[in-house]
Amino acid sequence: MNSEKFQARFEQLRSNKVFELFVVGVIIFSALVIGVKTYDLPESVITAMIILDWMITLFFVVEITIRFLGEKNKRTFFKSGWNIFDTLIVFVSLVPIDDTDMALVGRLVRIFRVLRMVSIIPELRMLLNSLLKALPRLGYVALLMFIIFYIYAAIGATFFSEINPVLWGDIALSLLTLFRVMTFEDWTDVMYETMTVYPLSWAYYITFIFFTAFAFLNMIIGIVVNVLEEEHREQERLDGEPTLADIQAQLRELKQLLHEKT
Amino acid sequence: MNSEKFQARFEQLRSNKVFELFVVGVIIFSALVIGVKTYDLPESVITAMIILDWMITLFFVVEITIRFLGEKNKRTFFKSGWNIFDTLIVFVSLVPIDDTDMALVGRLVRIFRVLRMVSIIPELRMLLNSLLKALPRLGYVALLMFIIFYIYAAIGATFFSEINPVLWGDIALSLLTLFRVMTFEDWTDVMYETMTVYPLSWAYYITFIFFTAFAFLNMIIGIVVNVLEEEHREQERLDGEPTLADIQAQLRELKQLLHEKT
Amino acid sequence: MNSEKFQARFEQLRSNKVFELFVVGVIIFSALVIGVKTYDLPESVITAMIILDWMITLFFVVEITIRFLGEKNKRTFFKSGWNIFDTLIVFVSLVPIDDTDMALVGRLVRIFRVLRMVSIIPELRMLLNSLLKALPRLGYVALLMFIIFYIYAAIGATFFSEINPVLWGDIALSLLTLFRVMTFEDWTDVMYETMTVYPLSWAYYITFIFFTAFAFLNMIIGIVVNVLEEEHREQERLDGEPTLADIQAQLRELKQLLHEKT
Amino acid sequence: MNSEKFQARFEQLRSNKVFELFVVGVIIFSALVIGVKTYDLPESVITAMIILDWMITLFFVVEITIRFLGEKNKRTFFKSGWNIFDTLIVFVSLVPIDDTDMALVGRLVRIFRVLRMVSIIPELRMLLNSLLKALPRLGYVALLMFIIFYIYAAIGATFFSEINPVLWGDIALSLLTLFRVMTFEDWTDVMYETMTVYPLSWAYYITFIFFTAFAFLNMIIGIVVNVLEEEHREQERLDGEPTLADIQAQLRELKQLLHEKT
Repeated sequence: MNSEKFQARFEQLRSNKVFELFVVGVIIFSALVIGVKTYDLPESVITAMIILDWMITLFFVVEITIRFLGEKNKRTFFKSGWNIFDTLIVFVSLVPIDDTDMALVGRLVRIFRVLRMVSIIPELRMLLNSLLKALPRLGYVALLMFIIFYIYAAIGATFFSEINPVLWGDIALSLLTLFRVMTFEDWTDVMYETMTVYPLSWAYYITFIFFTAFAFLNMIIGIVVNVLEEEHREQERLDGEPTLADIQAQLRELKQLLHEKT
Repeated sequence: MNSEKFQARFEQLRSNKVFELFVVGVIIFSALVIGVKTYDLPESVITAMIILDWMITLFFVVEITIRFLGEKNKRTFFKSGWNIFDTLIVFVSLVPIDDTDMALVGRLVRIFRVLRMVSIIPELRMLLNSLLKALPRLGYVALLMFIIFYIYAAIGATFFSEINPVLWGDIALSLLTLFRVMTFEDWTDVMYETMTVYPLSWAYYITFIFFTAFAFLNMIIGIVVNVLEEEHREQERLDGEPTLADIQAQLRELKQLLHEKT
Repeated sequence: MNSEKFQARFEQLRSNKVFELFVVGVIIFSALVIGVKTYDLPESVITAMIILDWMITLFFVVEITIRFLGEKNKRTFFKSGWNIFDTLIVFVSLVPIDDTDMALVGRLVRIFRVLRMVSIIPELRMLLNSLLKALPRLGYVALLMFIIFYIYAAIGATFFSEINPVLWGDIALSLLTLFRVMTFEDWTDVMYETMTVYPLSWAYYITFIFFTAFAFLNMIIGIVVNVLEEEHREQERLDGEPTLADIQAQLRELKQLLHEKT
Repeated sequence: MNSEKFQARFEQLRSNKVFELFVVGVIIFSALVIGVKTYDLPESVITAMIILDWMITLFFVVEITIRFLGEKNKRTFFKSGWNIFDTLIVFVSLVPIDDTDMALVGRLVRIFRVLRMVSIIPELRMLLNSLLKALPRLGYVALLMFIIFYIYAAIGATFFSEINPVLWGDIALSLLTLFRVMTFEDWTDVMYETMTVYPLSWAYYITFIFFTAFAFLNMIIGIVVNVLEEEHREQERLDGEPTLADIQAQLRELKQLLHEKT
């Protein structure tokens, strides 16, 4: 019973608005600490930063513990992907960063603590979920686009690899070069170089740009149409407005009534 | 009573179409003066420009005074943000620009006088208001985008700062570099440089471009959907067209009538 | 009466499908001649080109004459902007291009003959008309955008003119440079240069990019919304579908009928 | 009768899900083989690759044969564009690639085998079909855009050919240069070069960018509107929802009934 009391208190604390704001504040502060650490700092400030870092880590450990203890059913805690993400980020940052091999991971984890903003603020979590939900719809267009990329990369690696091995040496480099061409980044330099050997290779670039632009456009239009439709359906459900089919049903009833009376 | 008479006369003058057009004309003229002053000019023209500038400033002072005196309730005048902006711009440009320290501010204020176009022409004011109204809706997507930027900037400043301190020296420089990458401005040069040390750093750039492009796309789609919906609602209100719910209510009435008759 | 007979015959010829296709063919041929003339050609081909050019010009004179004579009311002919454009283009190309001063105009006019495609093909004419109709709607956003450009150009020409006079020498050069920045064309080179003198000038570029991007986005969304609405209204008119207001009127009538019967 | 039995068995095999997945697997594997071949490989791996390539080719021949034999009416097989494409790709890759002249074709055909993904997966086939269906709608805007391009290219080749023959030498090069300008790829370098001779040539580039951007925008909006409308109509058909016209017809009937009763 004592444990239940504790759990209830932790649950209360967890859903406290002030506590939540404080956690957001600590996350922002930890982000600032990460930012400050990228500057050249005097020795004393670096020491202060290390101490601050440990205090933030400690605070996060306490906070996660409160969240965990505040959960009635301990199992449901680990069913939420965000909880697992939070716990992982916090506990990996407990690993000391002195060790050179792990230092890299330790630093990265500290940076990813900023992502806890998303897991704490419900609006951001919802936004990210809706973004992720939009991804599968793009599946087949993305596959088609990858096929276009792959075919062009194979052609590029086959014909241009001897002209400029840095850009077209193998299929992976060719894919990167084609991504660059798609972003229009100095694509004419790439083109003029291959045109010295294959004068007609401009057709390769122009068709590639057209195909990807066209597929990309269709992707965007697909999303817009989908989003608009979903919003529309959502709207209708919220309005509780009758559909034309409802009206038609009522008219049929009326006619029935008139017939009966005769 | 004399003062009231004056006030009424000023109010009349203020809302006079010809007066308004004249003010717009003076603003355009002041913009042209600013433009002309950026060219290399003979001494005599510069002197003429300074005189013109003072005349314009004087005119604006008179105009603002008329506006102020034409206001019935002197307090409401300073409740409008545009009036405060106008008064500030006009009175700061009274400060002489000979003094070297203030010269910069004086010049800037003279340039910002062009913005008075927006405060004078109602259509532009409305347009700007509707643009500003659209901003808060973007709030959470902008926050998410900033988090993406911040995390990537922290990673960049941590790993690439020794490769090119000009681009990745600290987190502020990294943010600027990432903004550059987002606009596809010579982003491959930035990438190829870091790839000499970290051959897999292309993944850093490609994922960053994908994340920001995806978030940006969602921002645009969000605005489009919002604007379309608002227009739709506006349209319905203007049309005064009955909704399906109105039709349903009328049908119920009819049924009631039929029942009563039986 | 003879003249009327002629007129009727010319009108018939003018609206003949075969004649129209032939004119389109000649226009395409004249476009090809212009294209061929840009290559280095042997003397004999150049002579042939000049002869072809004269034949095309002659054909166009005859064609315009037929169009003019085929018009019942000679005045209405010059009321259509396209007819005036066609006549002008054709008659200016009668001016010989040997004279060095007029040669430039003569060449340009020959190139603009390709635009006759638009005046001949009704679908293209309609498309261009609808494009032009969309322009005025953009008026105020374009004005706002120009004000943003002008203010930033004035600031740029005031502060950066001594750093790089080629880019920021006067307000006209500054406007061109800002247009370049808006297209993201090597904008970081421009920025890094001014940042050596004003380290905070990045804010100038970033805010400019944000403002123009935001205004541009609103312009696009404005057009999309307008076009969608117009299409919607058009659709409704074509469908001849009753509005909800019509339905409501009918329901009122029914109620009236029921009341009368009681 | 024996042949019919065979045909039925092949048809069964052809529509077998496992068989289909296996074919997709082989296509992906063949794509990987093409990718691997672009790397520098030891002799033994190259030999293995050649053997694998032959096995894949053999598998495709067997698969196409099964498809053909599985068709009841042999004529309908060649009525589908995809079947013809598949057969062509497979049989051309039977040609040995040792011969230097044909090696190029052989390699290209091997790369295009990846496109068989599209012909096998129905969703991709449908996607591509819907993309192709969207093309004709763009016809007139594309024609208008080409006219703009052609006129500007003719002007460019006429006036700038002596400034930089590599960029503006003839109309084909000018078209390529203008495409580059449209993608904003180092377009200012092109502009600054011609501005040294014709200081006003900035107008040429700015108007070109405006015209193409405007036409491009209209193209996109056109597609969006079309797609939205089609989706809308599709939706209505699927819903089986009554139209307002149906409701109106029913109301007329009701009125008729009431009149009859009086």
